[in-house]
Amino acid sequence: MIRRYRFGTMIPTDSVVQSIEISGENPPFWQGGPTRLTYRMQPEDVVYGLGENLRGINKRGWHYVSSCADQPIQTEEVLSLYGAHNFLLIDGREQRFGVFFDYAGRIEYDVGYTDIDELCVLPADENYEMYVITGDSCRDIVRQLRRLTGRSYIPPKWAFGYGQSRWGYRNADDVRQVVRSYRENGIPLDSVYLDIDYMQDYIDFTVNKSRFPDLAALAAEMKEQHVRLVPIIDAGVKIEPGNETYEQGRENGYFCKDEQGNDFVGAVWPGLVHFPDFLNRDARRWFGRRYQVLLDQGIEGFWNDMNEPAIFYTPERLMQAVHSVAALDDPDIAMDKYFSVKNQLGTLINAPEDYAKIRHRMDGETVEHEKVHNLFGYNMTRAAGEAFEEKYPDKRILLFSRASCIGMHRYGGIWYGDNRSWWDHLRLNLKMLASVNMCGFLYSGADIGGFGADTTEDLLLRWLALGIFSPLMRNHSSMGTRPQEAYRFTRKQDFANLIGIRYGLVPYLYSEFMKAVLTDDMLFRPLAFDYPGDEHAPQVESQLMFGEGVMIAPVMEQNADGRYVYLPERMKLIRMRSTSDYEEQVLEAGHHYVRAALNEVIFFIRPGCVVPLADAAQCVEEIDTEHLRLLHFAESGTAEYRMYDDDGYTRDYEDPANIRVLRVTV
Amino acid sequence: MIRRYRFGTMIPTDSVVQSIEISGENPPFWQGGPTRLTYRMQPEDVVYGLGENLRGINKRGWHYVSSCADQPIQTEEVLSLYGAHNFLLIDGREQRFGVFFDYAGRIEYDVGYTDIDELCVLPADENYEMYVITGDSCRDIVRQLRRLTGRSYIPPKWAFGYGQSRWGYRNADDVRQVVRSYRENGIPLDSVYLDIDYMQDYIDFTVNKSRFPDLAALAAEMKEQHVRLVPIIDAGVKIEPGNETYEQGRENGYFCKDEQGNDFVGAVWPGLVHFPDFLNRDARRWFGRRYQVLLDQGIEGFWNDMNEPAIFYTPERLMQAVHSVAALDDPDIAMDKYFSVKNQLGTLINAPEDYAKIRHRMDGETVEHEKVHNLFGYNMTRAAGEAFEEKYPDKRILLFSRASCIGMHRYGGIWYGDNRSWWDHLRLNLKMLASVNMCGFLYSGADIGGFGADTTEDLLLRWLALGIFSPLMRNHSSMGTRPQEAYRFTRKQDFANLIGIRYGLVPYLYSEFMKAVLTDDMLFRPLAFDYPGDEHAPQVESQLMFGEGVMIAPVMEQNADGRYVYLPERMKLIRMRSTSDYEEQVLEAGHHYVRAALNEVIFFIRPGCVVPLADAAQCVEEIDTEHLRLLHFAESGTAEYRMYDDDGYTRDYEDPANIRVLRVTV
Repeated sequence: MIRRYRFGTMIPTDSVVQSIEISGENPPFWQGGPTRLTYRMQPEDVVYGLGENLRGINKRGWHYVSSCADQPIQTEEVLSLYGAHNFLLIDGREQRFGVFFDYAGRIEYDVGYTDIDELCVLPADENYEMYVITGDSCRDIVRQLRRLTGRSYIPPKWAFGYGQSRWGYRNADDVRQVVRSYRENGIPLDSVYLDIDYMQDYIDFTVNKSRFPDLAALAAEMKEQHVRLVPIIDAGVKIEPGNETYEQGRENGYFCKDEQGNDFVGAVWPGLVHFPDFLNRDARRWFGRRYQVLLDQGIEGFWNDMNEPAIFYTPERLMQAVHSVAALDDPDIAMDKYFSVKNQLGTLINAPEDYAKIRHRMDGETVEHEKVHNLFGYNMTRAAGEAFEEKYPDKRILLFSRASCIGMHRYGGIWYGDNRSWWDHLRLNLKMLASVNMCGFLYSGADIGGFGADTTEDLLLRWLALGIFSPLMRNHSSMGTRPQEAYRFTRKQDFANLIGIRYGLVPYLYSEFMKAVLTDDMLFRPLAFDYPGDEHAPQVESQLMFGEGVMIAPVMEQNADGRYVYLPERMKLIRMRSTSDYEEQVLEAGHHYVRAALNEVIFFIRPGCVVPLADAAQCVEEIDTEHLRLLHFAESGTAEYRMYDDDGYTRDYEDPANIRVLRVTV
Repeated sequence: MIRRYRFGTMIPTDSVVQSIEISGENPPFWQGGPTRLTYRMQPEDVVYGLGENLRGINKRGWHYVSSCADQPIQTEEVLSLYGAHNFLLIDGREQRFGVFFDYAGRIEYDVGYTDIDELCVLPADENYEMYVITGDSCRDIVRQLRRLTGRSYIPPKWAFGYGQSRWGYRNADDVRQVVRSYRENGIPLDSVYLDIDYMQDYIDFTVNKSRFPDLAALAAEMKEQHVRLVPIIDAGVKIEPGNETYEQGRENGYFCKDEQGNDFVGAVWPGLVHFPDFLNRDARRWFGRRYQVLLDQGIEGFWNDMNEPAIFYTPERLMQAVHSVAALDDPDIAMDKYFSVKNQLGTLINAPEDYAKIRHRMDGETVEHEKVHNLFGYNMTRAAGEAFEEKYPDKRILLFSRASCIGMHRYGGIWYGDNRSWWDHLRLNLKMLASVNMCGFLYSGADIGGFGADTTEDLLLRWLALGIFSPLMRNHSSMGTRPQEAYRFTRKQDFANLIGIRYGLVPYLYSEFMKAVLTDDMLFRPLAFDYPGDEHAPQVESQLMFGEGVMIAPVMEQNADGRYVYLPERMKLIRMRSTSDYEEQVLEAGHHYVRAALNEVIFFIRPGCVVPLADAAQCVEEIDTEHLRLLHFAESGTAEYRMYDDDGYTRDYEDPANIRVLRVTV
C-alpha cells in the first residue's frame, strides 16, 4: 500500500507516473517535521536503498547526501556519488516499510552516523512529497515503488554483449585495432565505446575529421563485424561561433542562465561552455533531436556524461583564484595561509558557489538550480530518450547516463561513474547492482577493471567474473592508466572463456532482465529479499540473487583461491571454466568455503530451477538460442523455465510468442 | 643460513649488526643483474614482507616502491607508505627463502604486477648488499633476519596502556578535560599525546607558554593521575633568529645542504625550515641531546613525525608555480593547459625535484639525498634513541617514528602514519601488524579509529577490538574530523569494557612482546607461519597468531554480527564482553561463522596453551599481576605459561626473576 504525503509546494520532478491521493502531512513511522524526519532503529533493522552509493547494501553506519556529484575518488568517506536515489527500505522485525522522497533538491540521510540507532532524513527545504510504502515483503515494497515510478528502460539486445571502452582511442585505426585484437584472440565483443576523443574539440554532435574521417563508414564496417560504436555525449556545449548546437541554443534561449539572466558559463572538456536547460521542455526536445546527427551516421547507442553537471571552473572564480595565488609574493608564509590560497584552485571544481548561480526555466518560471540539481542528468537523458521514442517508436536505442535520479530509469540505464581499479570497487560494484535495482535502474553496471588507476590481470579476471552477470558489461579505463583490454594480458584464453560464459548466459540474463522489467521486479536482490525468515541472510553483502534461479558469489579478494558462501537453502554449485567445461556439486544449506580459481566462475542454482546455457559466441547476434543446454537443480520430476526472448530491437514486449517453456525431466 | 652478496659500493646504512662474510655477486634463486633481479613464481607461492605497506599479507598482484613517503591517502593504488622495509620472504612448495636488500635508495618491487607470475626487484642503482636467507621455516628465516639486524626496541611498560591523541588539543585545559572525561567514564587511559599544537610556532623543543604555561607542572599533575604526556617532534627546524635549535644547527653546520652548499630550505608546519642532517654523526648526536629540553620537564616519551622528510614546498618552486598560475590571464583556455598549470601547485608537496637538491655529509663525504632517502627518519629516531641510551642507560623512554627503515627498529617503534577512518584501514591495520613484525618493528600500531575523515561509533568499537592486541594502542585523529575520544559516543560502558579487556590482557601481551623481542621472534604471525603444512592457512588475511597461545580474528566489516574464522586446529573460542564477563567454547578445526556483537571481543586459545588475564584497571601501573585468572585450553593434565614480567622501565631484561611459571592442572 502506498500513501502519499505533501509538504509545502513541490517543484515537479516527473518521477512518479501513478496518481495517488494525498493522505496528508503526517507520514506514519516518522517523527519530526519535514526538514528533519527521524526514525528510531532497532539494532537488527536493516536499511536498504539509496541506489548508487557508497558502503554496504545495508546502509547503516554512515551518512549520505543525495546530490548528483562528479566524484571519481570513491572512498568510504564520500557522501555523494553521481546518482540521487531517494528511496529507503527499512526492514525490521517489527516494522517494514519503504519511503520515497519525491524531491529534486539536496537530502541528507543520517543512517545511524550521528546516533548509531537513529535514522534521520534532512531535506534542504520543506517542499516535497513523500510516499510511504508498506507491503508483504521487501520485494513487494520495491515492486510498488517501481509501479509508482514507471517501467524501467529496455536496451537493444546487443547491448547485453561485452563492450570495450577507453578514454584514449584516438582515431579510427585505434578502434579497428581493438576490434581486430578481440577477434584474433577469440574474445567475444559487441561494442566499442567512443570517449571524448572522437569529437572535434570536444564539441557535442561533431566528429573530428582528421581522426575519424568517415564515422558512418566506420560504423558500417564495424557493424559488419557485429560491433556497434557507442559515442559519448557531454552536457556542456562549447561556446564557439559555428558550433551549430551552440548557435541554435543561444538563438532560442535554450541554455541555463546565470543570476543576471545571461547564459551561464562554465568550463569543462571543450573549454568554456553553456549548459542546455534540460528542465525547459522546449530545450529538452531540441537537444534530444540533436542526437540525430549521429543516428544518421549509423550510431545506435549513446552514453551521456558530465551531466551532474560537472563544472571544472567558472571564469570569474578561476580569475579570483588566480589573483589570490598571484598575490603570494613571499614564500615565507604561515601554512594555514598557504593552504588556504592553494585550496582556492583545488576547490574550483564542482563548487556549490557556481551551482548557486545557475537558473532554469521550467514551464515559464525561473527556478534556482539548487532546487532542481538532481533533475539535470535525468532530463538530459530524458531529452534523448523522448526524441528516440518519437523518431523510432519501434526501435530500441542504447542509452545510459552518469548522473541520474529516480524517474530517469524510464529513459535510460546508468553506469556507476568513474570508479578505480580497486578490489574495493569490485566489491562495491556488486553491492550497487542490488541497490540501484531497487530504484528502477535495471540496465546498469560499473566500469569493469576500474576506470582510474592501474588494473592488474587478476583484478580484471575477477571483475569479469562478476561482470558476466551485469546487464551493462563494459570494460572502461582512463587515459594514463595501464591498458586493460582483455587481450593485453598473459592468460588470453582464460579471458576468452570467461567472457564466453557471459554469452552462454545471455539467454538467461536477457530473459530474467526482461521479466524483471515487465513485472517491475528486481534482477539482482539481496539474499534477505528471497529468504525473509533467514537469520543470516541480512548479513550477506557479497552475494546476490540473480534472476529467479541463480545466486552469485564472485571471489572479490586478491590472491584468494575461493571464498566463503552462505547458502540459505540447499543449492547446486556450478563451477565453470567455459560454457563446455564445468562441474556441478550439490551443497547443503549453511556456510561453505568454495574454491574458485582465477579462470573459474562460480554460481548456484536454486532447487527446482533451470538455467538455459548457450554455447559461447563472438557476439550476441551469433548466440544460438535454439540449442540450449539446460543447467538445473531438479532432483526428481519436472522443472521448467519460462524463457523470454524477442527480436532484440523492437518494442513488442507483450507478444505471447516471446515466452518459451523449457522443460527438464529427471 | 644467511649468505651475503655485494654489488658496487654501498653507502653504509648501519641496518645490519652481524658480520657475515661476502659470498660473491651471484645470489641463488635470482635471475638478472643487480638493477633488475627476477624470480619466477609458482602459482601457489606466497610472497611475504615489505613491512609497512598497502594490500595483503601476501604481497602478490601489485608493485611497491621502497621510498619513505608522506602519504595520507592510502588507497589500493598507492606505491609507497612511510616506511621502506626491504625484506621479502618467498614461501613456495619448492623453494623458501628470504631476501634483505641493504640499501638506502629507491627500490621497486613488482610482485606479479607486470607479469602475474614474475617477481621483479628494481633497485635504483647497483650499489647495495643483499642477504639471502634460507631456513627450516618462515619463522626461522625471520628470526635470522632479525638477528642480522639487531634486537628490536623495547618501550617502557606504561606504553602498553591505551593512549589518546588528537591534532587539536589546543591547551593544558583541553588535555585536562580529556583525562577527566576518561576517568569520569571509567575508561582506562595511560597517555595523552601532544600534537604540534603544544609548540611555540611549531618550533621543536619549545612550548607555547600561553597555551601550556607550565608543561613540567602539567606533566607532573598528569603523572599523578597515571597519565603520561607524549609530545611530537618534527624533523624541520624553523628558520628564526632566537630559535636555539636553529641557531645551534646553523652555527655548527648541522643542517642538510642544497646543491650550492647552502642550508637547504623547505616549508613545513613552522613555515620555512632547515632539516638537521641526521646522517651526519655529529648532527645526530646534537639533535638527540636536544630532546633533553623536554625530558627535563618530566616528559618520558616522544613521537617523531614528518621525517620522510615531508616537504610542503620549497620557496623557489612555489614562486615558479605562483608565476605560472599568475600568467593565466584568460579563463578561456584548453583544459590540458588549465590542468597542467593547476597541477603545478598540487605537485609542490614532497616533490622528487626538491629531494634531488638535498645533500648530506656522511663521514666527511657529500652524499645526494636520493641515495640515502630511506635513512632519514631512521636516523632522526636513532639520534633520539642513542641520546636516551647515553643519558639514561637504565631507563626506557617511549619513542616511535613515522618514517622508518630496517635498522631503525633497534631505536624505536613506528605508527603506520596518517590513515583514515575507513573500514578498509582497519583491515590494513591487521595485515601490517604481521608484516612489520617480520621487519623488526614489534612496538607498532595504527591510529585507532582513523586519523583522517570522520569515524563512526561502530568503526571505533571494532577498531578497538583489534587495537587491544596492538602493542602501540593509540586513538588519534586529525583536526577537522569528528571528535573520537572513546567517551564521545553513546555506548560508553562498552568502550570502558573493551579497553578494560586490553588492560586484562597486558600481562600476556607484555610477556609475549618481551619474549618475542628477546628471541628475535614475531609477536604477530600469519597463520601459515605456525601451520606450515596447512593448505588453507596461506589464504588467511584477516586473522593472526598473537604470541604463542592466541589467534585473533576481529570483526572488520561494517554492520556484521560476526565473521568467518578458519581454525587450522581445534581451539577454544573466548567471547569476552569484559574481563569478568566472557564465555568459552571449543571449536573443531575448519571453517566457522563466529558471532561477535559490537561490545564483544573474540579470540582463540590454542591447545595446551594458557593465557593469563588480569582484572581491568584504569592504567598499567594499577594492573594486579599477582592475581591472574588463567584462561586456557588444556583438556587434561597440566599446562603452563612462562610469563615474562619486569619492573617495566629498567633494561635488566635477562634477569631470571623476570620469568614466572603459571600452571593449570585439569
